[in-house]
Formats: sequence, C-alpha cells, structure tokens
Amino acid sequence: MSRQVGLWIIGAHGGVATTAAIGLASLINHRIDTCGLVSARPEFQDLDLVDWSEIVLGGHEIRKTDCLTEALQLADTTRAVERELVIACQSYLEGFDKNIRPGIINNVGRAIECLADKQFVNEYNSARSAVEAIQQDLDEFVTGNQLEQLIVINLASTEPPYNLDELPETWAEFEPILDSTDCGLPASSLYAIAALERGWPFVNFTPSTGSCPKAIDELAVLKNTCHMGHDGKTGETFLKSVLAPAFANRNLGIMSWVGHNIFGNMDGQILDNPLNKQTKVKSKDQLLSQILGYDPQTHISIEYIKSLGDWKTAWDHIHFRGFLGTPMVMTFTWQGCDSILAGPLVLDLARFTDLAVRRGETGLMIPLCSFFKSPLGTDENDFAKQFQMLVDWASQA
Amino acid sequence: MSRQVGLWIIGAHGGVATTAAIGLASLINHRIDTCGLVSARPEFQDLDLVDWSEIVLGGHEIRKTDCLTEALQLADTTRAVERELVIACQSYLEGFDKNIRPGIINNVGRAIECLADKQFVNEYNSARSAVEAIQQDLDEFVTGNQLEQLIVINLASTEPPYNLDELPETWAEFEPILDSTDCGLPASSLYAIAALERGWPFVNFTPSTGSCPKAIDELAVLKNTCHMGHDGKTGETFLKSVLAPAFANRNLGIMSWVGHNIFGNMDGQILDNPLNKQTKVKSKDQLLSQILGYDPQTHISIEYIKSLGDWKTAWDHIHFRGFLGTPMVMTFTWQGCDSILAGPLVLDLARFTDLAVRRGETGLMIPLCSFFKSPLGTDENDFAKQFQMLVDWASQA
Amino acid sequence: MSRQVGLWIIGAHGGVATTAAIGLASLINHRIDTCGLVSARPEFQDLDLVDWSEIVLGGHEIRKTDCLTEALQLADTTRAVERELVIACQSYLEGFDKNIRPGIINNVGRAIECLADKQFVNEYNSARSAVEAIQQDLDEFVTGNQLEQLIVINLASTEPPYNLDELPETWAEFEPILDSTDCGLPASSLYAIAALERGWPFVNFTPSTGSCPKAIDELAVLKNTCHMGHDGKTGETFLKSVLAPAFANRNLGIMSWVGHNIFGNMDGQILDNPLNKQTKVKSKDQLLSQILGYDPQTHISIEYIKSLGDWKTAWDHIHFRGFLGTPMVMTFTWQGCDSILAGPLVLDLARFTDLAVRRGETGLMIPLCSFFKSPLGTDENDFAKQFQMLVDWASQA
Amino acid sequence: MSRQVGLWIIGAHGGVATTAAIGLASLINHRIDTCGLVSARPEFQDLDLVDWSEIVLGGHEIRKTDCLTEALQLADTTRAVERELVIACQSYLEGFDKNIRPGIINNVGRAIECLADKQFVNEYNSARSAVEAIQQDLDEFVTGNQLEQLIVINLASTEPPYNLDELPETWAEFEPILDSTDCGLPASSLYAIAALERGWPFVNFTPSTGSCPKAIDELAVLKNTCHMGHDGKTGETFLKSVLAPAFANRNLGIMSWVGHNIFGNMDGQILDNPLNKQTKVKSKDQLLSQILGYDPQTHISIEYIKSLGDWKTAWDHIHFRGFLGTPMVMTFTWQGCDSILAGPLVLDLARFTDLAVRRGETGLMIPLCSFFKSPLGTDENDFAKQFQMLVDWASQA
Repeated sequence: MSRQVGLWIIGAHGGVATTAAIGLASLINHRIDTCGLVSARPEFQDLDLVDWSEIVLGGHEIRKTDCLTEALQLADTTRAVERELVIACQSYLEGFDKNIRPGIINNVGRAIECLADKQFVNEYNSARSAVEAIQQDLDEFVTGNQLEQLIVINLASTEPPYNLDELPETWAEFEPILDSTDCGLPASSLYAIAALERGWPFVNFTPSTGSCPKAIDELAVLKNTCHMGHDGKTGETFLKSVLAPAFANRNLGIMSWVGHNIFGNMDGQILDNPLNKQTKVKSKDQLLSQILGYDPQTHISIEYIKSLGDWKTAWDHIHFRGFLGTPMVMTFTWQGCDSILAGPLVLDLARFTDLAVRRGETGLMIPLCSFFKSPLGTDENDFAKQFQMLVDWASQA
Repeated sequence: MSRQVGLWIIGAHGGVATTAAIGLASLINHRIDTCGLVSARPEFQDLDLVDWSEIVLGGHEIRKTDCLTEALQLADTTRAVERELVIACQSYLEGFDKNIRPGIINNVGRAIECLADKQFVNEYNSARSAVEAIQQDLDEFVTGNQLEQLIVINLASTEPPYNLDELPETWAEFEPILDSTDCGLPASSLYAIAALERGWPFVNFTPSTGSCPKAIDELAVLKNTCHMGHDGKTGETFLKSVLAPAFANRNLGIMSWVGHNIFGNMDGQILDNPLNKQTKVKSKDQLLSQILGYDPQTHISIEYIKSLGDWKTAWDHIHFRGFLGTPMVMTFTWQGCDSILAGPLVLDLARFTDLAVRRGETGLMIPLCSFFKSPLGTDENDFAKQFQMLVDWASQA
Repeated sequence: MSRQVGLWIIGAHGGVATTAAIGLASLINHRIDTCGLVSARPEFQDLDLVDWSEIVLGGHEIRKTDCLTEALQLADTTRAVERELVIACQSYLEGFDKNIRPGIINNVGRAIECLADKQFVNEYNSARSAVEAIQQDLDEFVTGNQLEQLIVINLASTEPPYNLDELPETWAEFEPILDSTDCGLPASSLYAIAALERGWPFVNFTPSTGSCPKAIDELAVLKNTCHMGHDGKTGETFLKSVLAPAFANRNLGIMSWVGHNIFGNMDGQILDNPLNKQTKVKSKDQLLSQILGYDPQTHISIEYIKSLGDWKTAWDHIHFRGFLGTPMVMTFTWQGCDSILAGPLVLDLARFTDLAVRRGETGLMIPLCSFFKSPLGTDENDFAKQFQMLVDWASQA
Repeated sequence: MSRQVGLWIIGAHGGVATTAAIGLASLINHRIDTCGLVSARPEFQDLDLVDWSEIVLGGHEIRKTDCLTEALQLADTTRAVERELVIACQSYLEGFDKNIRPGIINNVGRAIECLADKQFVNEYNSARSAVEAIQQDLDEFVTGNQLEQLIVINLASTEPPYNLDELPETWAEFEPILDSTDCGLPASSLYAIAALERGWPFVNFTPSTGSCPKAIDELAVLKNTCHMGHDGKTGETFLKSVLAPAFANRNLGIMSWVGHNIFGNMDGQILDNPLNKQTKVKSKDQLLSQILGYDPQTHISIEYIKSLGDWKTAWDHIHFRGFLGTPMVMTFTWQGCDSILAGPLVLDLARFTDLAVRRGETGLMIPLCSFFKSPLGTDENDFAKQFQMLVDWASQA
C-alpha cells in the first residue's frame, strides 16, 4: 500500500485552501494538467515526490461554512474556477470537510476575530491548552488516516504585527511562556508549536508570526523536523524579485518604485484594517533594498476593492535613471487570481517539505526560499537565484 | 605611459555611438556617474578593465554630418541628453570627428542606401577591395594613435536578411568569395572580416549578418582573436529574457505574448522597411520558445512613430494560464531611451572584449551573451543565467 | 394583442447575434438587468419603445451550426457569459434557430467564403436572384410571425473594400446592375437592397458596404423607410471619439495616436486577412482628423491572438504637446468583451429604428450616429455631441 | 494706448505661476505657439479677449526666492521646460519679481507654514488687518501700472479642510468676523475678500476655501464683480469628467473606480500631509456620483514621490459591468506635467474673467465650470457639457 501523507491547512476554508482542494481532486481525477505547479517542472521529475493521490487533506478553520459553498462562491464571484470543475469535485470536497476542526483565535487581532464564528471557535485559558487542543486534532487526523507524514501549513488571514524582540531565543526559556495567563503569542505561532512539538513540519505561507521566533526554530531542530516561511510570493512581490535584479545587473538606478494593489477577497477585507495591513506591507517592501544594495523611495498600497473579488490587480511604476542620468519609466499591470496563483504552491510546498523530512533535514528549509516574500534564514531575494537554490537542492543525490 | 585602446565604431554618427561618445567624454571629465554601465558593477571591480581615459574613439560612417550636430539633435529631439552636457563635450566630440572615415554600403539594402551620402561613400568593385579600404582606415587609426589594442563594434542600421545556408563553412573555402564580382556579402560581414583578418576583435551589436557565418568564426580563431554578437539587448527583449524564465519556473503556461514597439529614431526609420524589419523581428522573437520549451503564439510589431524620437516605447501583453487552467494577464509598458540604454553597453563590451583578448581567448566570447538578443554559440536566453555566466567568467583568476 | 416587431440578423450565429439572443431571452425572463442597453437609459423612458417581449428574432447565416452550440462556446471560451444563463435560455435559442435561413456569399471575399458551409449556402446566378431569395425569406418570416414591422441588421463578417466611385448615384440607374452577370456588389449591399425594396429598414453594424451607396439611400427614401450605418462603435474607437474631443477642447496637440487591438474571435480571424483588415482599419482611423481638424500620425493594428477569444484588448498610446511645446503621454488599456459590448447595441438600434419608422422618418437616421464608427450622412464624430443628438431626437414630441 | 490688465497671482513663485509667466513672456516674444491655451481655440477667436501683451503680472508669495531660480529649477528637475526658453525670458521674469509682495499665512495649516520664510512673511493681529495689507499691495499694483482691470487668481498650496457650515450666509453678518481675534478664516478667503471688496474679480484655482462661503459670493455681487472656483481640473479628474459620462451614456455600470496619483513637486509635498490631502481627495472624488447618478466604490490616492518632480502620473482602474452582468476593465495612465497643464489655464481664466467683467456680469462665472474639479454654483461635471456651456457663453453677442 502507498504512503499516506497528510496536509493540514490552517485556514482550511479560505480561497487558497479551497483552490488547493479543488486542484488536488482534479489532479487525482485527471481533469486538469499540472499548469501552475512548480513541482511538476522537468527539473523535479526524478525526485521521489509524493503522488497527488497519496495526499490527504485536513485542517483548522474559524468560520462555519463548508468547502463546496466556498468553492462555488469562488467559481461565481471570481469567474476563475469553472463551475463544472467544482461540481465534479463535490464528493472530494465533502470528504475534506469531515477532516476540518474549529481553529483558535488567540491574539489574532480584531479584524480576524470579527470573521470568526464565535459559537464554533473554542477559546482557551492558556496558550498551552490551545496548543494541546490543536495537537489532539492533529493526532486524530494522523491516526484516523494512518498517515506516515503530516505537513502543517498556515494559510490563515494576516495577523497584526507582533514584536519578536523581547522573546527568549532558546526553547527552554520560551516554552514556559505558553503557561502564563497573559501570553500574547498569536495563533499562527501556537499552530507552529503544536505541529513542531509533535515532530511534524510547519510551513508559514502568510506574513503572520508563525515559526519566526528563534526559539521555535530551535524546537524544530530538537524535534528533528523542518519549518519554513514566511509569506507566499505569488504576484507583485514575485515580479519585484524577478525585475529588480535585472535592473541591478544592468546598473540602472531605481529612483522610486511604487506598487498599488487592489483586490476584494477576504484577505483584502482583513488587510483593510491598518494594523493587519502593516504586517503585509512590511513583508512586501523589504526585498528591494536587499536586492539593490541601496534604498530607493518606495510606496506600497493595498486597497480592498470589493468588485475585484479574488482578482488581485497590481500596478507598479518603476522610475529609474540610466546612462547620463536620464530618467526612464517602466510600468506593469498584473491581473492575477490570488487563489489560483497560491493554491498550487501549497501543494508544491507539501511535496518538497515531505521530501526534506525524508532526507533527514532539520530546521529551516532555505532551498524553498523562492516561494516566500520574506524567506527565513537567508537574505537572498533574487528570484532567479532562489530558484537555482531549489534546483540545486533537488539535484542532490 | 598608459595603454591606448581603440574603439572603432561602424555607424559612428548614429544615436548609440553619439551617446557612447558623450558618455565617454563625460566619464573622463567626471561630469556623470557610472549609472547604466554594467562593467562598473561591484562584481567587476577587481578586473583590470581598461580605464575610460585610455579609450580612443574612431569609426566609419555613411552620412555626412558631425558628432556635435548629432549630439545636439539628440538633446533637443529626445530631451534625454542635457544640452549642457553636450556643450561641455564639444572639443572631445570634434576630436572624435577627426577619426571618422567614409564607410561602405555593399549589399546594405535600399533603405540604408537612401541614408548614405553618395558623394561621401566610396563604392568598391569587389568585396576584397572594400575590405582592404577598411583595413587601411584601421591601420592608420592604430598607427596614428599608437594603439595597443583595437575593438571594432558594429552599430550601423539593420541590414535586410541574408541567407547563410549556402555559405562555405571554412575560411579557406569562404575567402575566395570576396574576389567574385557578384559577392553578395553585406557590409557588416566585410567589416567583421576586415577587423578579424588584422587580428582585431569584432562585436556585432546589430541583428545584421556580421560575424555570424561559421567561416568568419574560424577566421577569428585563426587570427587568435575574438568576436561576439548579435543584436544588443536593451529594452523589450531584455525584459522578455528576464520575465519569461520566471513564468517558466512557476510553470505558468504562456498562451500568447504580444509585443508592440514604437519609436521614431533613424533605426525606426530603417526598420519601417519591411525587409529590414524582418531581420529585427526574427531576432526579437526566437528567444521565447527557447526559454519556455514550447511555442506560444507571439506577435511583435515595430512601428516608426516620428514624434517619439529616440524614446522606444514598448507595450507587451502576456496572456498565461495558471492552475486549473485559469487565464491571467500581465502587461508592461517600457518607456526607455534607446541610445541611453545601448550607449553604455557599447563601452562595457569594449572593456570586456579587451580583457578577453588580453586573457588570450579566441573565437566566440560566449560569457558576453547577456548583452545580446541572439547570442552566438549558445542557446541560453535566460538573462539571469546569462549574467551569471559573465560574473563567473569575471571571477576566473 | 401587442405589436410584433421582427429583428432579422445577417450573421445570425455570430458572437454578437448570439449575445443579443441570450440577452433578449434573459430580459424577457427577468434574469438580467438592463446594464449595457442605451435605450434603457432614463433619457429614453418616455419614448414608446418596443418592449423586449414584442421582438421576434430571425436571420441569415452561412455556417451550419445552432445557437445553443455558439452560446455554450461563448460561455466556455470567453468566460464572459455564465453557462447557467445560457442553459436557462435553451428553448428560446432553439426557437431562434427555427427562424434562421441560409445566407448568401456574393463577393464576400475569400476569407469569408472559407467560413461558409458550401452545401448549406445557396449560390445565385445573378444579384437579382439572390435579392429575391432573401426577400422570400423575409416575407415568410413576416407572415409566419404576423409582424407589424421588420428591422434588418447586418452583423456579418467584414467584407474586403469595395469601390463606390463608379456606382451610379440614382436608384433608377443603379437597379439594372443587379441583373448583370458580373455584378460585383457584395452580399451586404444585396441584403440592404432586399430589405429596403420591401420597405423594411436596414442597419449596417459592420464596416462592409451595405447601404453606403448613394443610390441605396435613395431607394430607402423611395420606399418610405430608413437606414443607417456603418460599423458599430463599441471599444477602442468609442474611446477615441470620447477622448479626442477633450484633447481638442483643451487645445492639446496630438502628435501621434497609436492603437493596437488584439483578439481571437471569428471577427479577428477574418480581419487577419489583409484585405478585410483594410476595410476595418479605414473605419477606425478616419474620425481623428475629423475631430481634431488636423492629421496627426496614426497607426492602428488589429491582430488575431487566438487565446484572447472574444476579449478585445486594445492599447492606445497618445503622444501630445502641451503648453511651451512640452510632450506628454496618455495610454489606455481596454479589456472589453466584444459581443457583450455590441450585443445590447443591436437591440437598442432595433428599438430606435422601429421608433424612427413609426415617426414617419425616411432615409438616413442621423440621430443614431453615436452607435457608429463611420456614421453615414454626418461628419460629427464627437461622441458627446453625437449622444446629445440622440437625446434631442428622443425628446421631440 | 492699449488697455492694461493686471493678473495678480497668489503663490506667485509656484510651479504653475512660473510656467504661466514663462509662457506669457514667450507668447509676447512669439517663441511658442498657443498649444494648451483654451482661449486660443477657434471657438473664441471672435471674442475681444485681452491680448497677451496687455497683461501685467504681479502677486503674493510666502517663500523668499525669485522667478528665474524657480524657472530654472523647473527646467532642470522636470526636463519639461526648455532651458533656452527660460533664458530668453530672463528680463521678463525679473520684471515679474518686482511686482511680487510677501503673502499671508493665516490659518494655512502647519504644512504650508513650514514652507513660509518667516522673516519674509508678515503676520497680522486680525484678519481685517491682513485683508487691508493685501489691498494696499493691490492698490499699488493698479496705480503703478495704470491698470484698467485686475484679476486675482489663487494658485497657492492646498489648505487643510475648513468647515463652512457655521459661517453666516450674508455679507452683513459675515464681515464682522474679520475683526474677531480668533477669526479662523484661511488665507485663501482673505485674499478673496481683499480682491472682491476692491471690486476686482477672484478666481480660485485650488481646492482651498477661497470664495466658497456664500457670504463672499454676495460680496462679489454687491461690488459688481465676479468670482469662480474651485480647484483647477487638469489631469486625472479632467479625464474622469470626460470618460465617466461616456460610460453612463452607454449604460455601463461602474463597479469601482480607483485612481492613484504620484508626483514630486511642492504641491505633492504639501498634500503628503494627511489634512491637506483630505481637502484634495474630496475635490477629486465627488464628481463621479454626480455624473453617474449612483455611488460606485472609489479610491483615490495621492502620494509624494520625489523623483517624479512635476510629472504627475496617474493610473486609473475602472471596473465596470456590461450586458449580462459581464465585468470588464479599462485602465489608463496619464503622464502629464502639472505646471504645463495648469499654467495656460491660468491665462485663459484671466482672459475669460476680464471679458465677463466687461460684459457686466456679477457673482459666479458658471460658464467657466469646465476649468474646475468642483465648480461652484453648478452640479454639471460632464466635461463635454461644461465645455459647451463655455462655447455657448462665448457666442452670446
């Protein structure tokens, strides 16, 4: 019998998770090709990656809904997923629903709290008891599905900024915080701790705190497992990490880089809150100076425009100097469907993470940095170089 | 006393050459910084590249004009070069004029012939006598300026397509063609032969034939010198070679890539001729399928719009499929000043070529492929990888 | 019992006709609102316009297909029409099919001939016999549906250019041409003659010849009926007619106006033929100089890009001079679905034409000029002024 | 001898004023054509408008600088004005300098106060004494130049919002406020009062309060003079007022209209202050719902991007529904030079205002509404209709 690998999604009914679920079902049923899946590239065909049919989906969610409803809404609002495809997956999506448990909302901030279905979500006295509740869900999922491996990936809405500066840097000092009554750790970190303590890898596809604290990295190493983050790189920032190195290589001087992002999905609704937006903008902004080696003026706006739904439209204006100081301009418009771009990367990350764990790697999975806006453990933000790191890692015996 | 390195430009009064001349003068006089010069990047600072003040300019031209006139026109029409900068270079530009000789128009096609000042340009009975006349000009330049090295670079207008298929592949068989009365070899190839026979390296910054024939490559090797080409990569195609690999790496399927180019300089005037345009479009179009590994529908238009002068504006529309087959769109607009983008690369190529020759290299300089739309001797069109080749080459002891 | 008004469409299975049919069915069933319908504007609410439920559809077609097939293709390829909407109209569309008759292909040019289903289409020895066959179809439609009025509208593919210069200008001189064996009149004009001879109004929504000849205008007057054309104004040209007057009013000097159009529907396929494209480009280009009072450099390209389907994407680059001669730039991108934009205007034109006839008007319906790229009988191309003409006409008692 | 008409500019050394001055000098010297000047359109050639050579410039300013310095900075930073043109105007600009007096900063808000040269600007105990000081400057200008007419136009930086709700609506009740010690009236209104009390017309080209209060309108009527405002319409809002009516006329439903504005001139620096920005955004935003008759979601951003200087770049994203509810998109990019666009309109407004006064008109000059983002006294925001009002007014005997 084949291996069974669990993929546990925090934010299991969000757009990205729903797209990943539709996609996985459709891959298994051969209704779609592998377009958009990095792990399906020729460079990775000799790797023994987990097969689509070997992946089992489960997850946490704080809203009371079901996968089919979300999938149909995605089809109707975004016009990006064909309704026929959704209908063909109905039984698969209902199976996914059965593996979804109520999530936690510890320190997620007001905007996310407002999304949560209060009667559905459990609140816990201490961070420790929240972690234990999560772990019980994970245990049941593993046992119930005879999983050999479990990958936990965070796709939940962006939390407000959280200051890491005063956190202890070793796990030994950090762990007791979980028991304090006023532990301010956000949900994303509690999920990370829950997974890693059990020895399961954790991937943070959002700009939330997750496994960023140094002590949590140590926890991963102590438990012989892996983690990586943070903030999936899919649209405007992806293009920045592709274009900025080219400008740098040609020694063209960026004077200003302005990026406007508009979209109308739930992510956008949450980012409409100034606190949550702050977390996101920071993640989108920092790479430029790292790539260029100097600080041009930048401006990033993210605005919630309801009519756009999941279509994340970005307009970037790049003002640069060339030879003799002559100013020139490049602008681009990106009309991408957020879930469609992010969904397959979730499946890719599950496959690559599963491989890393099987290869016996521990701690940060830096070769996966091309997937993230703010990759942990590296300053490399040049997409081409990041991708080369993945290819090089893949080609290791 | 310092080395003197000659840079002999075919098309010495064109916009790119004029910009290179203004720039070189301004670098020597410290009136500009090194913005736009690749060879000024930190990666190349430990190389013993020729200093700006050691370069001496000369060249061939088929129009009767002078450098200051062209420079002022560039300043006034394009508003891209500051008039003050031009005025400050006046004596330098007049010095350049003294090293400019009448060029040849063998088989350059009607559009270019119309540009030529007939009383100024010499016509030759045989290709061989044209080559010899060119060599005499080069010899005088070398002797007169006590040059240790001479780099010949072709910046002249794009010639009509020339069929290489029936040309002999060895120099021994090829050379006699020069004496035939109806030798159809275009001027760009005669310049290449003239330079290489004398042992001077040749760089073809245009899509014209130049040193593309295999036999001419052999000539370079026989004479212990280098050559490279062809077609400088500065704007829309540069961006294609940056963006297409990123789409490929993310496994996004390009369905169509449409590129519209509009500009109003002399290059545009020549490309308005369907024959000459054919040469250019081919050069701009081929890289996509090489990068992607399949053939999406492409369309490239190049239109002469007088009011734009040297401002080459490109609009590209990239239609691609993502996960679940969902179609998405990226468009970009590039408003670059052609001469400003190309001018510094001419100086970079002179410096890197001089280094290659000093390093004892012969034949094609493939590590310079990032500078060309259709690099000879390699199928690598991914800009990031091409640039890495340059960096790797530079870092060789 | 209510009046019954027939709308007879030439090109009855094309994208525009199919959209009009889906729309009409959905209006009758109250499944859509009146978005996109000019005649539903408040300015026209006091007019006694024919009700949606009073319109009966029929038409000619040269391809063998059916309306549901075309509608589903529109839904699946363009993702612009919801499949559910199509399914809900199925029986209506099947009813439309029953009123569709084989069309003619006299002098439509090779590109359109290739589309035609040869066994389906009838060929006629003389223009006169083709006209009579058409008239027989119209007569049967009128009688079979007890129609009080019939409006014939041409939505068929663009024919190659046809030279009007040598045509006689009176109907008396013109009519005998129909009997000559080598009558070169294109199908669009034969349809016009067939309708007008029977006293039914004719509207030419394409750039084909149709009722442009002066003698055909006289025929309309002789038969106490109306006609108008030509070439529906829906996308890029619509915007030109909106923007150019504003530039003119501010006395900004247009130096060049470049428009690139890409799309992949059947219209695009036909326009890929240089002859047919010539007809279209002429129609799109002429209005600028009429609006501005001078001739800036213009360039219009129309390219068939299959992946875009019915999504007509236009990019316009407007280069203009302001005060002190300073050059500035406006660009716009229009991503419109061709059938969706044109479909409702067909219904609007039917309603306004029906009203014009009831008002006893004859000859050209100039107040409808805002609907056309090249309105017959007027030089007014300023959209705002054209629309005001419609409003003024509507408000006449 | 010819009439002498004074044009008194508040903000005399700003970019718009400087451009108007360079332009006026160049018109007088025949160095430029009338491009960009509305009053030079054929529609207005039969009006007896004041000749360029009859206009005398003066004004108030709060920074210590001179016109030539500002003009050269405009030439060098924006590359939009040719340096040669500036040099040719030098003596004219120096003459203008002699007519410039220190302005006032009553209630202009912190951002503008920071710009002011404190030793240069006079501060006044009461609004009344500020008004009197301004009037003394105006009187001297009129007497010294034997002016028959004086037009005062406000081009100063945007003030923070000012609440008009509690102001008395008659001049009799309003006037005493000027004597109160804590009169909060902003400088723009004091300038308006100063001019109108003397019987000179006042034009407010900014979104500041100026002559908006109803009582000030009454003052104009009482003094038999005219006024108009507010906020010059030159770029993005101009285009909105051109495009939105066309969407409305075609019954296309605007779902959202997002406008991003970036620029780096002094205006942008002031608008970087959230308070001042609020005044501007309100002025740019309101017209859409007036034109459309409903309230789509809108978003307007204005960001100070230093490198752009006076080049105001706007990107607008218009998301609209068509027939069958299908969503479509139009985007435009406007790369306009702010001073170049606004400068000539200042001269136009002076000419039309002079005419209005000579025609004996009093109160609001509503026929000038096409020049303003938020025209006083009318709800008409459709540019084409506004312009028609100007043409109709002009054609009155």
